[in-house]
Amino acid sequence: MTTSFPAYLELLARLRRIHVLGTVTGVLGWDEQVNLPPGAAVRRGEQMALLAELAHAEATAPGLGAALAKCEVVGPVGEAALVVEAARRDYDRAVKLPAELVAEKARLSSEAYHAWAVARAARDFSAFAPFLEKHLALARREAELLGYGDRPYDLAIDRHDPGLDAHRVGALFAELRAGLVPLAQRVDQRVRAGGGRPVALRGFDIEAQRRMALAVTARLGFDYQRGRLDVSLHPFCEGSGDDVRLTTRFDADNPLDSLYSSIHEAGHGMYEQGLPTGHAGTALGVAAGMAVHESQSRLWENQVARSRAFWSWLEPEYRAAFSGPLDGVSADALHAVVNQVEPGGLIRVDADEIHYNLHILLRFELEKRLFAGELAVADLPAAWDDLCEELFGRRPSHAGEGVLQDVHWSSGAFGYFPSYTLGNMIAAQLWDAACAALPGLEGDFARGEFGRLLGWLRETVHAHGRREDAFALTRRATGLDLGAGALLAYLEKRYDREAN
Amino acid sequence: MTTSFPAYLELLARLRRIHVLGTVTGVLGWDEQVNLPPGAAVRRGEQMALLAELAHAEATAPGLGAALAKCEVVGPVGEAALVVEAARRDYDRAVKLPAELVAEKARLSSEAYHAWAVARAARDFSAFAPFLEKHLALARREAELLGYGDRPYDLAIDRHDPGLDAHRVGALFAELRAGLVPLAQRVDQRVRAGGGRPVALRGFDIEAQRRMALAVTARLGFDYQRGRLDVSLHPFCEGSGDDVRLTTRFDADNPLDSLYSSIHEAGHGMYEQGLPTGHAGTALGVAAGMAVHESQSRLWENQVARSRAFWSWLEPEYRAAFSGPLDGVSADALHAVVNQVEPGGLIRVDADEIHYNLHILLRFELEKRLFAGELAVADLPAAWDDLCEELFGRRPSHAGEGVLQDVHWSSGAFGYFPSYTLGNMIAAQLWDAACAALPGLEGDFARGEFGRLLGWLRETVHAHGRREDAFALTRRATGLDLGAGALLAYLEKRYDREAN
Repeated sequence: MTTSFPAYLELLARLRRIHVLGTVTGVLGWDEQVNLPPGAAVRRGEQMALLAELAHAEATAPGLGAALAKCEVVGPVGEAALVVEAARRDYDRAVKLPAELVAEKARLSSEAYHAWAVARAARDFSAFAPFLEKHLALARREAELLGYGDRPYDLAIDRHDPGLDAHRVGALFAELRAGLVPLAQRVDQRVRAGGGRPVALRGFDIEAQRRMALAVTARLGFDYQRGRLDVSLHPFCEGSGDDVRLTTRFDADNPLDSLYSSIHEAGHGMYEQGLPTGHAGTALGVAAGMAVHESQSRLWENQVARSRAFWSWLEPEYRAAFSGPLDGVSADALHAVVNQVEPGGLIRVDADEIHYNLHILLRFELEKRLFAGELAVADLPAAWDDLCEELFGRRPSHAGEGVLQDVHWSSGAFGYFPSYTLGNMIAAQLWDAACAALPGLEGDFARGEFGRLLGWLRETVHAHGRREDAFALTRRATGLDLGAGALLAYLEKRYDREAN
Repeated sequence: MTTSFPAYLELLARLRRIHVLGTVTGVLGWDEQVNLPPGAAVRRGEQMALLAELAHAEATAPGLGAALAKCEVVGPVGEAALVVEAARRDYDRAVKLPAELVAEKARLSSEAYHAWAVARAARDFSAFAPFLEKHLALARREAELLGYGDRPYDLAIDRHDPGLDAHRVGALFAELRAGLVPLAQRVDQRVRAGGGRPVALRGFDIEAQRRMALAVTARLGFDYQRGRLDVSLHPFCEGSGDDVRLTTRFDADNPLDSLYSSIHEAGHGMYEQGLPTGHAGTALGVAAGMAVHESQSRLWENQVARSRAFWSWLEPEYRAAFSGPLDGVSADALHAVVNQVEPGGLIRVDADEIHYNLHILLRFELEKRLFAGELAVADLPAAWDDLCEELFGRRPSHAGEGVLQDVHWSSGAFGYFPSYTLGNMIAAQLWDAACAALPGLEGDFARGEFGRLLGWLRETVHAHGRREDAFALTRRATGLDLGAGALLAYLEKRYDREAN
């Protein structure tokens, strides 16, 4: 089969429509969090429901199935084989899920989100438990319909990271945990012994923060001809190709939040801008999965932008922009805030680079047990608290800083959490490989130059789309199997050996 | 037929889908002018084309035709009859227009827009003429397909203002012209004799202008819980019901532009916010047409916000916001800028309240002759210049300030221009009726109170949707047939008798 085979062209045209419709939904989703007037929520819900219905119709169109079947009869090779294989998987999943189940999940997610928000405020897990039960039941039903009846958690993981499963993630996380728990204890001890908290950064002009976020992300390589930066309650990155939109949030008394969330989202954004636009909507033109996506945001946020080299470039500009509030804050004090570790912090979204991964280990473990039927929803809070004690050395004082802290489960987004730490692991390996391939890389940063690194990531990661899963991609890009070693070594070097 | 007749409910559900899909396109259209990264134009074009295709499919769905037919067999009465009748008209038009013609028009509009922009810059009509020819040919083909073969210009007008036609508009415009041309000459003479230009307003802080535009439009009654104000190159109003978005633009040296364009768009926006949301997408829940729409924007912009009473309320706040640049500008001088008349101005979008209508008379006359075959495209520039001399007393010095000045024809939007002046005529009549119904209305304005006027417009105009055409609506709302008298009397009173 050549790539000009009529059925293949028909397939590509149909995938393109699905992709374009997805980008429309994406713009409306972004708009909902950035622009929507308070009174327009119901209207937006109606728009999103109609778009979901139209997207489902496109994704299950008989013409799409027919084109796929014709391609498969002829036997696609090379890149076309990848495209057909991924399209087949998506098509089968779409046709196997009845529209009423999809609608039920959407309805439940909306109800569960509100129930979660109320329960979290009241610190009352029992008010949320029935919704979690329903989400788990739906996830099991989905898994059965899609042929994952005996391993529903694998499906949950595969949804976010094609090619991964609970067993492989579990092995990696066990390796990580063995090194991370003692490392966290050592660092916590050192921080506690050091005494005193880092200096507080206060009174940073919002407009100057905005200019700083724009300037830094543009300098890193995010292309503002093909993207934007706006404000939302929770930072995110939406879009692909020529229209990638980052958001951040500004707090005069927490300037590093806007800086680092902008850099983080720009990492996602540069990945999306680097994917081959011409292949958009096929396996050749989309991200390899959430773990690889997260590796891009974390690498720029952490390995690059928390380094001494990066700050030796940025510090003069940063001081010029915020001369007043930085008066009397030494370079070392500033760097200490940038790489601050907070022992015993129990909130994931506020966690430092070390403790963040402990949070993920905890959630993965609990999701695994829930899906395996080893843990009942009613027993989840106690299991959470026990595991917290094991990993962090203390128990949450209430469900709001424990089992109810994250939004994910309210939308049934099981299997998503592991991506964060897998992303950190991949980032650490990519970082080692980049340093080996690009001698003097930190010297670039010290001069405010990031083009060599971005070019290497474009070539090594972005250009490949979803040709490989996270394991294969990491192996090809770094020469090493995905493992915990690089992340542990990186964290040790930055937080253990080096005095901060 | 009751309104719970199954086919009627089916009809309503389908009209709702068409409406919702239209609102999605609306958000993307707004986003294109407010947010779109420069590099994302092609991508946005692809999204809009797909949405247009999906909308066409919904509008021509056989199920819609079947539901309509069932309703018609039973014989709808009252409001349902209005809904069915309007839906029938839209459905018939949609099914009679082949998709390829719709696509051809979209393609032509895109090409013609770029050709127009280039031609205007080069002041070269011949470069745009072939595109105008094609648009006219398409409009004639459309008219034939839709049963308007012998009167294509009537269809063009009816598209924007259901129920209106060239003959009725022509009679109104003849009446207006008879009074307006001598009035303009008198006012021009007075202004020229008065000598000296009004004071220039310069150096008005942009952020303060933004706050002023928000505060004033909110005070007039635009609901920001259900809307927003943003910036675009050309001000516009997009949306309906619970999500109505206004735009304006800011120039430190032209502060009245942002103020009056915001008020104008808020007039459109309050109409959209006042339509009965529950009927959205049916004739009961949409605007009566562009003329009535324009009456709402013009009434707030002109009758209300250029009045002495309005400024006696706003002036202290305005001076407080812009104390520096208003230093030494007297109240009279400020009011003179607000009601500035520029004799011999040949650009429509910069025109004052009097000359604006002359621009519309000119365009209507030329469109009429073009559609009647009395005027060839090649002869259009000369005809424009001749008519300009007749109406304005001078000829344009080049096509850029003559026949090429407006964007409308590049998208084939014939029949749109008359709405502007019809809107002014309706606004003047509504204003007289409101003053009669609400004694002491200008006293309200002097206290910054606009609720009685908005309430009257809600009740008299907004709540009625498209139950009536512009003629019937004006007659019911004002007790008088639509005519030129009220507008002429208003313009005379403000610009002729009163010394400004």
